[in-house]
Amino acid sequence: MENLTQAAVIGGGVIGGGWVARLVLNGVDVRVYDPHPEAARIVGEIVDNAERAYRRITGGTVGPRGRLRFASSVAEAVREAGYIQESVPEREDLKHRVLREIDTHAAADALVGSSTSGLLPSRLQVVMSRPERFLVAHPFNPVYLLPVVELVAGERTSAEAMERTAAFLNDIGMKPMTVRKEIDAHVADRLLEAVWREALWLVRDGVATTGEIDDIIRYGFGLRWAQMGLFETYRVAGGEAGMRHFIRQFGPCLKWPWTRLTDVPELDDALVDRIATQSDAQSGHHSVRELERIRDDNLVDIMRALAGNDWGAGTVYRTYARTLTDRARVPPAGDALDCSRPLPLYTARVLEEWTDYNGHMTDFRYAQVFGEATDALLMAIGMDAAYTARGWSVYTLETHNRFLREVDAGTTLRVDTTLLGYDAKRMRVWHVLVEAGSEQPIATSEQMLLHVDTASARACAFGSPLAERLEEIWCGHRALAPPDPAGAGIRPVG
Amino acid sequence: MENLTQAAVIGGGVIGGGWVARLVLNGVDVRVYDPHPEAARIVGEIVDNAERAYRRITGGTVGPRGRLRFASSVAEAVREAGYIQESVPEREDLKHRVLREIDTHAAADALVGSSTSGLLPSRLQVVMSRPERFLVAHPFNPVYLLPVVELVAGERTSAEAMERTAAFLNDIGMKPMTVRKEIDAHVADRLLEAVWREALWLVRDGVATTGEIDDIIRYGFGLRWAQMGLFETYRVAGGEAGMRHFIRQFGPCLKWPWTRLTDVPELDDALVDRIATQSDAQSGHHSVRELERIRDDNLVDIMRALAGNDWGAGTVYRTYARTLTDRARVPPAGDALDCSRPLPLYTARVLEEWTDYNGHMTDFRYAQVFGEATDALLMAIGMDAAYTARGWSVYTLETHNRFLREVDAGTTLRVDTTLLGYDAKRMRVWHVLVEAGSEQPIATSEQMLLHVDTASARACAFGSPLAERLEEIWCGHRALAPPDPAGAGIRPVG
Repeated sequence: MENLTQAAVIGGGVIGGGWVARLVLNGVDVRVYDPHPEAARIVGEIVDNAERAYRRITGGTVGPRGRLRFASSVAEAVREAGYIQESVPEREDLKHRVLREIDTHAAADALVGSSTSGLLPSRLQVVMSRPERFLVAHPFNPVYLLPVVELVAGERTSAEAMERTAAFLNDIGMKPMTVRKEIDAHVADRLLEAVWREALWLVRDGVATTGEIDDIIRYGFGLRWAQMGLFETYRVAGGEAGMRHFIRQFGPCLKWPWTRLTDVPELDDALVDRIATQSDAQSGHHSVRELERIRDDNLVDIMRALAGNDWGAGTVYRTYARTLTDRARVPPAGDALDCSRPLPLYTARVLEEWTDYNGHMTDFRYAQVFGEATDALLMAIGMDAAYTARGWSVYTLETHNRFLREVDAGTTLRVDTTLLGYDAKRMRVWHVLVEAGSEQPIATSEQMLLHVDTASARACAFGSPLAERLEEIWCGHRALAPPDPAGAGIRPVG
Repeated sequence: MENLTQAAVIGGGVIGGGWVARLVLNGVDVRVYDPHPEAARIVGEIVDNAERAYRRITGGTVGPRGRLRFASSVAEAVREAGYIQESVPEREDLKHRVLREIDTHAAADALVGSSTSGLLPSRLQVVMSRPERFLVAHPFNPVYLLPVVELVAGERTSAEAMERTAAFLNDIGMKPMTVRKEIDAHVADRLLEAVWREALWLVRDGVATTGEIDDIIRYGFGLRWAQMGLFETYRVAGGEAGMRHFIRQFGPCLKWPWTRLTDVPELDDALVDRIATQSDAQSGHHSVRELERIRDDNLVDIMRALAGNDWGAGTVYRTYARTLTDRARVPPAGDALDCSRPLPLYTARVLEEWTDYNGHMTDFRYAQVFGEATDALLMAIGMDAAYTARGWSVYTLETHNRFLREVDAGTTLRVDTTLLGYDAKRMRVWHVLVEAGSEQPIATSEQMLLHVDTASARACAFGSPLAERLEEIWCGHRALAPPDPAGAGIRPVG
């Protein structure tokens, strides 16, 4: 595992800014160099969008950002960096100039990745005195969410640089894919190029509009490709006869006159106009910022859905979501709990998918929020990975929830938690859900929790440090006035 | 809205079988003709797989299937059908023969769709005496889940046939997309063809394996295409400068040497071998049936995720899931409630995504199940769309859940519901969650519910028929022994 804490990003456009966002939200300090007068604003907006998406991933708060600074030269940006990512425009002469500067001023063991989507690493690294630490690391927009990054070695790239880079990118939630041979446009952009060219013909020939083509993709094979890609999808389509049969059956179609791939459509004014006009009709009612947020929400939710099945991008997401959540929940060092009042340990934003057709948070999502608040309390009293590794856990015996007010998507929630009592094996807690800011109570939850030995599934006494931390909280909370409805049952009616 | 109740499917392979599944699971009666000796088994397996997926959509039961019968000739299959779908192999001579037979024996106003992925409707319909009711209706595998269907008119197809077919397919949860001009391979397969051809080159040239290409797609642009397609994705990538700028910037790349599209790789034994071997290494540890189930679970969950954002395929899914759920919940006509015992109104299967890292159902999913059981009760006493349209709803005031046992993914759950009492505006219910079959209680939920006028958000008296149905249930349930812990609060501890 490559634990680099200082990085440099050269070029702060959509791709460079996306790298910055992924790095700082993983706690890595970043120095950016971009001569564009508005670079700081643009990068700042991307990082804010990314933080919004990450809150959706963690269901609430995110961990502390790495430090973000702007440098006034490449030299200044790269000097202390362990990892350097170049994302300047796609011109070989410009990339050469920047790589030469990086090479001169970076530490000898710093890794240098290029975001190039088309150029060959062997041709880029020729200008460097230490070409062995250079490679292509080609990500996809939005860099802070899409996991895949194509790694391509040049003739002079060392195996060590490939391994160290893969390990680092892995650590920040990415899925590095090593391309076996260098080739113009690597892998993904060759496939994208083929589709893009054919799609332009379809628009030019009036077969379909941009919006219709997008719908045919996203209501159809796009859903397949989000989870299985091309070959596995066809394997399944081939049925019991298998892949060999599928190729024999569908191979010949390749020679049918189904594509216009030998030609490139002339991008004259008429075609550009047509595409731009159709695109406006399709998407013009959303600003680009809005579309970015919609895209990010969809990507997070698709990956979360796949995580539920532990499949494809969901497998990376599952680990990453946990990492980000843990980073968010670790209390700053030396930050002791203030036990003279209820503990505000949990915050979350009401997500769209938590609401029903009326736009209100669904009943069972209250239960989810209270469950996560209980998790936050357990974490705060020391139930970490080391504790559960001892075979201990805490089960919920009873929950009694009272619903006081409705709450809409986008509302920021906070849960204040009071310890109502505890004994050797059990604890009784009182959660109040409020709207952060207005402090209006929305719901309450009384819960009885039991400490168990998971192997035998039997109750057992709290271990250290849970027992000590509970006593600490109880010293403060025993003095708080007990909430009125605590301990009461649901009253008969009729 | 085209409410056809009788359909015919000619050809029962992967695509034909998928049509059958979508139709019968929407309650449409289907007659199938396929001379293959194992047609009945193959179609039956596809319908079972589809029902499994639909249970995932509804979270439990599905509505009654349409009647499925196998015919011994095309004539017998189509005679009573209002909609006929042809899905025989992709050979023009064969399609002509089948269409001629359909044309002779079908009712004059029956619609005839062809699943052809490449052939032109004008060339297919020449053999028909009533060509005006023929069109291409090209779906995507799995037909019972992927919404998109390309509709293509031939020269002699009537506008009415296009409209009626679109309305019917819409009714069974599909997203019909009308292609503006007939063209070999329509739209989607032209795009797929371009990618497939380029991907075969990448494998042949040893740039990446089939598994690596799939990963680069599904960890990357596949996630984008599941929700925005091609043009909208690029619009966002173009940033504030917009679509016009994006095309001007990236158009020239089309002429760079990035693809080998002018050539078709020779599908010799060596290449077929290589692909089959790589595909086995990638997917061979799963059977095709397993892969189908994994794919279906992923597709349902991705569409559900998008439904949460009311976006793309999620918008169709949202409506469709509701339709399927309503169909599942409507009690068979004349099926009165047996009020002498608790009411078994709700069943569900524990989904993978309901479980935590230990494989057990997460606490808040119990709350979800109990919430849905309450919905089922409300529906059973007459709270349908007409009732809520009067401005009435039922809110949850309190829930008190007791957790007795853990439960794993795949378990079939049932909730038995007892009315504990009611007055003019409130009802108090007792749910017991059991594992269907073993009858072991897993958890209980006591709930207090309030009838409200949604406009004023104030409590109001139950209207008809809720009031009458509650009294009916109460006549039986008042005699049941009250469950032991009902009415009790959570006891103090420590």
